[in-house]
Amino acid sequence: MISPEKVKEALGTVLVPGVERSLVKMNLVKDIVVNGGKLDITLYNAAIMKDTQEWLKARVGQVMKDMDGIIEVQINFADAVPKDLNKVKNIIAIMSGKGGVGKSLVSGLTAMALRRQGYEVGILDADITGPSIPRMFGVSGLPGMSESGMLPVASSSGIGIMSINLLLHAEDDAIIWRGPLIGQTITQFWEEVLWGNLDYLIVDLPPGTSDAPLTLLQKLPVSGIIIVFTPQDLTAMVVRKAVKMAQQMSKPIIGVVENMSYLYIPELKKKMEIFGKSHADEMALSAGAPLLGQLPIDPSLVALCDEGKVERYNSEAYTAYIQKLTKLLISKE
Amino acid sequence: MISPEKVKEALGTVLVPGVERSLVKMNLVKDIVVNGGKLDITLYNAAIMKDTQEWLKARVGQVMKDMDGIIEVQINFADAVPKDLNKVKNIIAIMSGKGGVGKSLVSGLTAMALRRQGYEVGILDADITGPSIPRMFGVSGLPGMSESGMLPVASSSGIGIMSINLLLHAEDDAIIWRGPLIGQTITQFWEEVLWGNLDYLIVDLPPGTSDAPLTLLQKLPVSGIIIVFTPQDLTAMVVRKAVKMAQQMSKPIIGVVENMSYLYIPELKKKMEIFGKSHADEMALSAGAPLLGQLPIDPSLVALCDEGKVERYNSEAYTAYIQKLTKLLISKE
Repeated sequence: MISPEKVKEALGTVLVPGVERSLVKMNLVKDIVVNGGKLDITLYNAAIMKDTQEWLKARVGQVMKDMDGIIEVQINFADAVPKDLNKVKNIIAIMSGKGGVGKSLVSGLTAMALRRQGYEVGILDADITGPSIPRMFGVSGLPGMSESGMLPVASSSGIGIMSINLLLHAEDDAIIWRGPLIGQTITQFWEEVLWGNLDYLIVDLPPGTSDAPLTLLQKLPVSGIIIVFTPQDLTAMVVRKAVKMAQQMSKPIIGVVENMSYLYIPELKKKMEIFGKSHADEMALSAGAPLLGQLPIDPSLVALCDEGKVERYNSEAYTAYIQKLTKLLISKE
Repeated sequence: MISPEKVKEALGTVLVPGVERSLVKMNLVKDIVVNGGKLDITLYNAAIMKDTQEWLKARVGQVMKDMDGIIEVQINFADAVPKDLNKVKNIIAIMSGKGGVGKSLVSGLTAMALRRQGYEVGILDADITGPSIPRMFGVSGLPGMSESGMLPVASSSGIGIMSINLLLHAEDDAIIWRGPLIGQTITQFWEEVLWGNLDYLIVDLPPGTSDAPLTLLQKLPVSGIIIVFTPQDLTAMVVRKAVKMAQQMSKPIIGVVENMSYLYIPELKKKMEIFGKSHADEMALSAGAPLLGQLPIDPSLVALCDEGKVERYNSEAYTAYIQKLTKLLISKE
């Protein structure tokens, strides 16, 4: 007789359309009952529309029929909402206080770093009025959606992404909403999106210390914060506001990242500190957290982001960041 | 007999402490009655604390006694609130949608440009959670304040500045407020600050299209918007959201400014487009407004901002910006 484990393994090969992750990774398998040659599988329907349910039924039936010893397969769907199925081990918020320091970039690079180490990763784009994650990763198109919730859209390396820009008619439509509505959207992105099993959910916060970060830090079980800044003194001052906010709300800052540290001029073989001298050590000290990296301004990275191909990026500074970050996170596991 | 005009002229030499602009420019002169050698002056007390009222009384008395033909001077204060005394000809909002593109820098440079042309100028720093204007202009210290309102703080070239950072205990204290409170603060900065007579009030908006810009565009009689962007494609997309917001709220965009257009490398005598190729013409087209300038990344400007000495800045690109801007504004007068 075939074992439920074997069946589950086979279900692990069935990918949910759109999000491109398996039924198992999306936590959509409720029950597997094996009775002789008869197999009863119950899946959850959270965030899965009717058409996709039918498609999944057919696809699972086909996979099971290919297995030895199975004569009859019954597939049912049980009601569920994403909130009850999500198992997210760590939520890491990328914060800054200051705009344009590269929070979205660091969010993307952090998610990619963890994904390259084999972790299951998602990105919740909490920058409702200025979302840039979808463009950077080249994802577009409406997320899968049912009455019970939404599915993230998968990046080419398999990072699940949810962003308001995926839900807009045109990517440059403006969201002219007041704070409470923005807070509500972020909460929805957490509760009504089927993230499934994730090792890390990276949250890209908008600048400032108002509604979006407040809601996030109050409503989501954030496990750690990474603070992003640039060398400018002026930036450091505004960024320290975010540090103080994190401290006042008793959320641990796990590291700081200096972005736009310098520009390397190949013709001169020299680094130019175009935004001023680095304050990285000082920032690490005032945040009480390690410096995870100093990322240069890299025109090739700018171009990849504009083309939606950030996942192709490699550089010495980025490799160093990946190493420091993963070492730190493993030490916390 | 001395004429009221002569008296008013003399009052134009009496500077209000802190804001360093005259009683006349601050619209604080209510009445001048000349009766033979007897002079009756009534000033408004809006935003002027008791101590300063006494000081002003003494100072005005002294100036008047120096004038020929005056035997007796009577100085009284009448109740008033800033809202009723402010005469602001033009409000120009600096917007972007995207953070870190240099809205504050362009706000500062725009105010300086108009000031250098001899206009009376103020800056309302509406970036409540990430204010950077005071640092850039090197102003600090508590604004003058009474029950009826507040006085801006004067920059070295005489630009009146109001920012939440002037009101904080430490400049890196975080403002952890939800949207409605932020909107309320911006309204207060408009209604309860004695701006006096201004040709231009420049409003530095925070990134995004949520509470702060919404409040500003709904509650203040904004005469025009300047949109700031950088060459990155990704930025252009987010900035177009601000353009759409302005259009949806029927506020005229008077011009667009590209910041961080390029970096000039003196050793190579060449311009590097480190954030990608310029989209300036495209942005001007989509905003339906002229391109006012393309400002480079200038390490000397970064340093001046960090030192609080932005008003000392000069460069070819900035001179070109000043010329285009003033020509445009004069054409609208």
